[in-house]
Order: sequence, then C-alpha cells, then structure tokens
Amino acid sequence: MHKITLLIHCDDQPNIIASVTNFIASNDGNIVYIDQHVDREQNIFFMRLECEFISNTFFIENFKYAFQNKLAEVFKLKWRIYSAERKPKMALFVSKYDHCLYDILGRYNSGELFLEIPFILSNHLDLKPIADSFNIPFYHVPITKTTKEEAAQSQLKLLKKHHIDFIVLARYMQIISSTLINEYANKIINIHHSFLPAFIGAKPYHSAYKRGVKIIGATSHYITEELDAGPIIEQDVSHVSHTHSIEDLIAKGRDLEKIVLSNAIKLHATRKVMVFNNKTIIFS
Amino acid sequence: MHKITLLIHCDDQPNIIASVTNFIASNDGNIVYIDQHVDREQNIFFMRLECEFISNTFFIENFKYAFQNKLAEVFKLKWRIYSAERKPKMALFVSKYDHCLYDILGRYNSGELFLEIPFILSNHLDLKPIADSFNIPFYHVPITKTTKEEAAQSQLKLLKKHHIDFIVLARYMQIISSTLINEYANKIINIHHSFLPAFIGAKPYHSAYKRGVKIIGATSHYITEELDAGPIIEQDVSHVSHTHSIEDLIAKGRDLEKIVLSNAIKLHATRKVMVFNNKTIIFS
Amino acid sequence: MHKITLLIHCDDQPNIIASVTNFIASNDGNIVYIDQHVDREQNIFFMRLECEFISNTFFIENFKYAFQNKLAEVFKLKWRIYSAERKPKMALFVSKYDHCLYDILGRYNSGELFLEIPFILSNHLDLKPIADSFNIPFYHVPITKTTKEEAAQSQLKLLKKHHIDFIVLARYMQIISSTLINEYANKIINIHHSFLPAFIGAKPYHSAYKRGVKIIGATSHYITEELDAGPIIEQDVSHVSHTHSIEDLIAKGRDLEKIVLSNAIKLHATRKVMVFNNKTIIFS
Amino acid sequence: MHKITLLIHCDDQPNIIASVTNFIASNDGNIVYIDQHVDREQNIFFMRLECEFISNTFFIENFKYAFQNKLAEVFKLKWRIYSAERKPKMALFVSKYDHCLYDILGRYNSGELFLEIPFILSNHLDLKPIADSFNIPFYHVPITKTTKEEAAQSQLKLLKKHHIDFIVLARYMQIISSTLINEYANKIINIHHSFLPAFIGAKPYHSAYKRGVKIIGATSHYITEELDAGPIIEQDVSHVSHTHSIEDLIAKGRDLEKIVLSNAIKLHATRKVMVFNNKTIIFS
Repeated sequence: MHKITLLIHCDDQPNIIASVTNFIASNDGNIVYIDQHVDREQNIFFMRLECEFISNTFFIENFKYAFQNKLAEVFKLKWRIYSAERKPKMALFVSKYDHCLYDILGRYNSGELFLEIPFILSNHLDLKPIADSFNIPFYHVPITKTTKEEAAQSQLKLLKKHHIDFIVLARYMQIISSTLINEYANKIINIHHSFLPAFIGAKPYHSAYKRGVKIIGATSHYITEELDAGPIIEQDVSHVSHTHSIEDLIAKGRDLEKIVLSNAIKLHATRKVMVFNNKTIIFS
Repeated sequence: MHKITLLIHCDDQPNIIASVTNFIASNDGNIVYIDQHVDREQNIFFMRLECEFISNTFFIENFKYAFQNKLAEVFKLKWRIYSAERKPKMALFVSKYDHCLYDILGRYNSGELFLEIPFILSNHLDLKPIADSFNIPFYHVPITKTTKEEAAQSQLKLLKKHHIDFIVLARYMQIISSTLINEYANKIINIHHSFLPAFIGAKPYHSAYKRGVKIIGATSHYITEELDAGPIIEQDVSHVSHTHSIEDLIAKGRDLEKIVLSNAIKLHATRKVMVFNNKTIIFS
Repeated sequence: MHKITLLIHCDDQPNIIASVTNFIASNDGNIVYIDQHVDREQNIFFMRLECEFISNTFFIENFKYAFQNKLAEVFKLKWRIYSAERKPKMALFVSKYDHCLYDILGRYNSGELFLEIPFILSNHLDLKPIADSFNIPFYHVPITKTTKEEAAQSQLKLLKKHHIDFIVLARYMQIISSTLINEYANKIINIHHSFLPAFIGAKPYHSAYKRGVKIIGATSHYITEELDAGPIIEQDVSHVSHTHSIEDLIAKGRDLEKIVLSNAIKLHATRKVMVFNNKTIIFS
Repeated sequence: MHKITLLIHCDDQPNIIASVTNFIASNDGNIVYIDQHVDREQNIFFMRLECEFISNTFFIENFKYAFQNKLAEVFKLKWRIYSAERKPKMALFVSKYDHCLYDILGRYNSGELFLEIPFILSNHLDLKPIADSFNIPFYHVPITKTTKEEAAQSQLKLLKKHHIDFIVLARYMQIISSTLINEYANKIINIHHSFLPAFIGAKPYHSAYKRGVKIIGATSHYITEELDAGPIIEQDVSHVSHTHSIEDLIAKGRDLEKIVLSNAIKLHATRKVMVFNNKTIIFS
C-alpha cells in the first residue's frame, strides 16, 4: 500500500468534498481519514485527507499531475501532498538550556516522534555532550553582533545540505534572520515561555511574577518577522500562586515548555497543521 | 435551503466516504461538514455529515428511500438522518437539587441550547416554583417502593404525549425503570457526581473524601441497565486538597456537574454523539 | 464563642509569629487557623489568623486597643480585624448581561455565599425582573456622557446608605469613577473576559479569535485607576480550537466568567485576600 | 544559621499553636514558615514549621530533648524534626520503562531536586546504560518466583548500607515485599498509571480505553500492603477522546506519569507531606 496525506485549501464553494473524494475513488484510492474546516469569516475551505493506493499501480507524479489539472485548476485549490512513508527531517537549534533538548531526544529515542534529526545546531558549545550521548551530529555556529548574516548563511548551508524540512528552536536564544524565515516560512517552530500574547519578548516569567498572574503558560508558534506574533500551534498553562518565586515559575514553566513544544512538533511532523492568515488549523 | 445531519456506521470497507459524498452530490446536495472515525479494534467505520439541499427540489422521504436502497443496503450501513430545522424535545427529570436545573434553564432562556423543553418532571414538589418562574409545565410523579412500575408508566405516557426525543436526569435521585431505558436507549442522559468508573453508586463525594483523592470529577453518561456503567459522554475534574471538607467537595462538585451536564446536553442535541459497544464517538 | 479573623502585614522581622500567637494566647484566645507568607523580594511579612475567644469575657474594642498598643506599634504592623459573625455587605453592579448575575444569585439563594446583597444597581432596566424574582432591591442609575460624576455621586450615596463593604461588577459595562475607586480601594471586584494581561480593554474575545489563541481565559481583579491593571484575584482558562467561532468563544467564556467571579467573591467575602503593591496574597 | 523543619500532629486542643511558637521563640528561634490543618472529622491537629536558629548557640539534640519534655509530653504530640541542610537520600527502583527515569535524572542533574540518589536498582539490566551515563551506581537484583524474599533481603541490605531515607518506584514492575513496606512505611513512593481508585491493578490504560473514559490520569501514592490503595500524594489528568488508541493513551500517560511522580518526589523530599489514616496532608 502507498499512503499519502493531502492538504487542501481554497475559497469555499459547493461540491469540493464530493469532487475530491470522487477523484480519489476514481484513482482507485481509499480514503482512510478526512477532516475539513470552513473559516466562515474569510470564506476559506480547508481539508486534510489520508488515502491509500495499491502500490504497484500508483505513481505519485501521475497522481499529482492529474490532481493539478482535473481538480486544482477547476476549484483554484492550493494543495500539498506527502508520502506517509517519508519521515520529515527536523533540525534542532539550541543555546544553553537543556530541558527541551533532553525531552525531545528522549521521545526521539523511544520512537515517539515520526521524524529524523539530522543535526543539532547551537551558538554555544555547552550542549554538545548531550548531542554526542545521543549520537546526533552537532554543529557550532557562534553568533556575534557583527557576524549575524554570516551565521545565517552557515545555517542555511547546513539546512540545505541535510535536506531539512523544518526547524525547531528548543529555547534557542537568538533572533532568526529574515533569510531563514523566508526560506522556511511556517516551518520554524519556536517555544515561547509565556501564554502569548501576554508577556511578549524577554524574561516573561519575571513579567508574570511582577503582574501577579495566577496562571502561567507556554506557547509554541511559527516564527514570523514580527517578534512572538506568528501563528500559534499549541498552548498550555499551569496554576500558580503568591507562594511561587520567579525561580518556581521558571521551574514550573520548564515542564510546560517541554510538553507544549513536543506536542507542536508532533502535530507539524504528522502534517496536521495548516496556516492561513497568521492562524493555524489543527486537524488532530 | 434544507439542511440535514446524517450519522452513519458500518463495518469498515473501502470507498465508503467517496460513495456517500458522491451520492450527496448526485442529489444536488452540498456537504458543509464531514467527520469520520474508524475503530481499528472492532473495524467499524463512523461518519457524520451536514449537507444542504435546495429546498424546493428536496424531499426528505425520497432522499431517505434512495439512500436506503442505493447505499445502505450495498454497504450494510446503519444510519440516522435529522432535519437541522427540527429542535429535539428534551424532558427534564429532577428531584430536590436545584443547581443543574437553574443552570440548564438559564442557558435555555438565553438561547444557548438548540432544543425545546416541553416539561419538567419530578418525584417531589420542591422545584415546582422554579419551573413556574421559567413558564415550563411541571409534572409531579411521586414514587414509592410499591408504585415504581406505575410511576414508570405515568412517565412513559407523558413522554409519548409530548413527543420527547431525549431525557435529562438533572440530579434525579431515582433508579430509572427498564421500561424507560429500553424505550429510550442511549437517549437518557445522567450526571454522576464522580469521575467514573471511580466511586460508582451513592455518596461519591463522601467516598472521594475518605480515599483522600487530590482530584474530584463529574461524568455525564447514557443510562443503561447496569448502574453508572453506561457510555460516557463528557467528564471534567477539579483539583482538591486536604483542606477541603466533604461540604467543600460537594460545593466544588456542583460547578463541575453543571458544566459537564450542559456540555453533554449540547453534544446530544446537536447530534454529535454516536454510541457503539458502550462507548461514545463525539464529533465535536 | 466569639470568632475573629485577623489580617496583618509589616516589614519582615524576627519573632513576629511567636509574638502575635503569644498575644492571642495571653488574651485567652485559641488560634484555629494560621497562615503566613513572606515576600522575599520586598521583605514584607503577611499573616492571616482565625481565633476563638470565650464570648462573655471578650470585648473586641479592648482587644483592638491592646493589639494596637502592645503589638502593632512595636512591630509597625498594618492590621485589620473582622468579627466572623458579621457577613460583609456586597453591592452588585450590572448592565445587560445576565449570566454572572444569575450565577451569583443562584449561589446566594442556596446559601453558598457568606455575604448579604442589600441591592443591585444598573445603568439599564433590562435585568430588573431578575432582581425582582430574587426579591433584591434594584436601583436604576442611568449614565450619559454628561452625567458621569452625578451618577457616581448617586452610587456613592446608595453605597453609604446601605453600609456596603465591597462592590462586584458583574459585567458592568461602565468605567468606574475615581471617586468610587478611592472610596473603595481594593474593594471593587471586576470580571474581565480574558486572561489578563492579554487582551486588555474592549472585545477581548474578538481579539483572541483574531490572534488565534488555543486557550481563552477570564480574570477577576480589583479595580484601580489604570484599565484592567489592578491586582489579580483569580484566573481560569479553557482550551479552544480553530473550530470555535467568536460566538463559541463568548459562550465558553461565559462559563469561565461565572466561576472565576464567584470564586473571587468567595475569597474576598471570607477575608482571604490581602493586597500589596498591586498583587494579591490569597490565603485559601 | 541553622534551619530546621518540624512536623507535628496530635489531638486537636486549645493553645497548641501559641505553645509551640512560644517554645521556638524562647529558644531564640525565628519561625520563617508556619502552616497548620485540623481534620475536623477525626479531631486531629497537624502543623509544619520552618525555623532558623543562630548556629553557634543551637544544639539540635538539646532542642529535641527540651521539645520532647516541655511540649510533646504535655500535648501528647507526635513529631519529627529535620535539619534543612541534610538532603534526603533516595533510592530509585526501575524495571524496563525509561521515561520516568530519564525525567528524574534530568531534573536531578539540573539541580531541581533537593536530594541525593546513592543508587539505582533494577530487576533487569536494560536501563544500566542510562544510570552509567549519569554516573550513578546501578545494582541488578533479579527476581524470580522462588527468589522473592531473598531479593527483598538484598534490597534491604543495599538500602541500609547507603542510609536510604526513601524509595521511588519509577515504573518498577514488581510487588514490594512486606519486609520493605514495614521498614519504609510511608517512605516508598509509587506512580500508578491511572486516576486511582479507578483502574486499580495491571493494564489501566487498556481498562480506560475499554471503558471509554474522556479523561485519563496518573496517581502517585505511598505503597501499603493493599494494592494501589496507599495514601495519595499527587494526581493529574489529561483529556482524551475516541480518536485515541491504547497506544495514544500510553504515550499521553507517560507525560502525566513523569510530572506527577516528580511532583510527589519534590513534596516528600522537602518534608511537605504528612500521612494520617491513609490520607496525606500536603503543606505546599
């Protein structure tokens, strides 16, 4: 069996679902999962399908060609197709904090994540021993005020060389260059240690402490040019009280960050996220 | 526009989705919502569709006839169809506790619930003034040890007379008779004041207090012959601590009960619940 | 038995706890509850005590006099004392939304709230029938652009006349005048329909929808001069998804608002809240 | 400064708080934390204090002697005292699952846990490499049907030799012998992968799946002779739906288990847990 995942969006209009499902059937495909959403404010239709085809009669390039000509052009569909066999390749960017790194690598090791990690990259050397202990290549790309663009080019070269599909910033403490953001639009996942849009920017736990909130949060989102303003993939929160010091908030927050980021990675890697107008549709 | 909701289940098999969507399209219907689930353990396929048809050319009896002959018999489908215009009729059974009753009637009054409440029934007279203040007919059907079956017949008569679609037990403190359970299979919604299957039976808050749990819960489920063992629709929980007395648990529990029951009512009334083998599929 | 609640704060210093507990004992009082907190950033000590005294030998004015002279002046304590018998008097301000009002009055009726509600006040007449059905006096104080200060004076007069201890804004849609804020500092409780400090100001559910958050919240806080920036008493959240419309967020939010506001009222009415430097200490 | 933690319980009676705090003060101690609880059902008083003494005039043995004679005998107090400097020694028992082990060792390494881990013990060799990579001694104590008591003796010998204060069963898949349970009463912490008392015993995720619950949980508790019936320290839950397979429940459950167990460890290690009549008082 050959299994594919198909993501589609277009202006909402009658008969899309029947036309698409009919097209799959007429190509001897069987739909094993279908989910759809209509954004009524913007009148946009979104759909996610998983289909199975008999391998020896299915040629993905032929299917794509026919899909584009017989459906996409008629309904003005935007679409992406993925072979379910192919694990996406994820690059991990880290700095000095190790909790998200340990968490991701632990899940990776136990087979919980459907992806490959060709390398870990950092602007510091502190976490190299962890990469080594998990036998994952580690690249050190230091960044200074004057070498930012040069560093971005080094990063880009590594990403290209390893055919990276998406990037995860596991508490990577550097601004991502526009070059990378454009090259990997909606493919760079960040974990921000607050319940966005509250406490944008640096030191959110300090701000949360100062404001006296009774709940702290963490937010995973795609990186865009505007700081901490990209499409939100996943959020979670924990209750806190006046008895918690800033250090307590940071410790509680680490647990949130780990879970929120790993959930976002899973959703992205299994192609369950669509992005439109700076918001996500999550087919989970 | 005529809008219908279609619920289908059958043995899992290829081409169901395409066949159903194609059938809708060939009847000039437009699918506005589709969701499906496959139970891989039991190999059962479930689907929920919302479709729109142009009113003056759509005759629901014709549609049903064709659906049964062209699809249901071929795929051995079990199916139900609902006109979206028709609000389901819900009977409310209560005893002496008023918190769930107030909550439901408040939501009903504000238009939050897609349903009609033809009457409230109780084995006591205590809550009649509330029914009166919301202008809803109130029937008093007292129950004694020797009048149980007689009472069940009175209840059944009222339910039939008012064309009741489903029953909600809003802390109704009586065992429901088999007569009613059979007549309204998977159509009697109960709220149990614990996180089932923990603390089945009477006085769950007392049992929770005694066991020293750190979380209490509430569970809404369909009534079956076996006590507190029917299909679960909705559950929620609250954190508690050693500082909470039994009375505190009861007070905190009231808030859980209200929300869990009203959520279950909403899911049922909008036909988002399917039941199979004592479990629910919730298309929400 | 005469029962009192004592709230104390001062600069942190040795021997406060022993001195206070010793003073209670030497006055033949028995401490039935003690809790304390030290804000290590600001070096401030906070304590809450509940004590019982034998009624026929206890005179609260004598106790206060001795406490002030023997303890408060020595340690430079700021303190408040409450007789546990005396229920605080709460004024309810509302506009047109009824869900918080229904929720509070339902709890009030069932004896869940330790307080009295001498009156409900509104700038509209819409909710008068609800006040009537619960037999609570209702005052209509309309507000126009030019009558704001005049309205504030009418409000103040009513508050004084009824010896109101604290005010609850149950979705009251008007800015509170500085006159009232100063007169009732840290005694006006608001419910804001977002997870503050996210989405300050009007239409937070619309902003939450636009930003695409995966969690919505509600916040109860004391009113200060700065909009939505007062000390936070209680917060809670609900998970949402791309499938929720703005109307869905508003409906889900109503449930949050009810619970968060009623919890804040309970904490305030039982004197479990202390405020310092725009943050709350909650002794719960 | 010498810092101690004092845990006290006794029959509830007047003047305990004042007497204890006065005793501390008369020994030149300063109370920096006090919390208390009265179990009104059983009429038992519980208190936890943290006190500071000037080191060169404080002798803990003298203090204990005086405390026993002047207070404990008068009020019939049961009490325990801990020097805050001394980190408790924790033994980790594991079998083949590594997620809790990784989680605990990660927190241990980063300084999040106030304790020492003298050794890890297992009935299998699978996790030895993890112990090695964290430089913690690993003992292999295999268990067969006929060697259970022999194995218990080996375990006990290791525990004694290393002066172990408490034991954590991080998914250790063996029944603990009565010998150990008696020797370490309320000092053996287990993580059970369900929301107890629901789904006692083996394969709780399978039972949860079968019952169709909408929430799964994890429970950390002290081991007693009765299976999964010991005092509960900490519980947490996650929402699930019909879309989750048993494998999904197990994966989601791993995250719960890690957090619930590490929270229980933190509470125990900082002496915030008291046990009475098979329930815990948590001073957090």
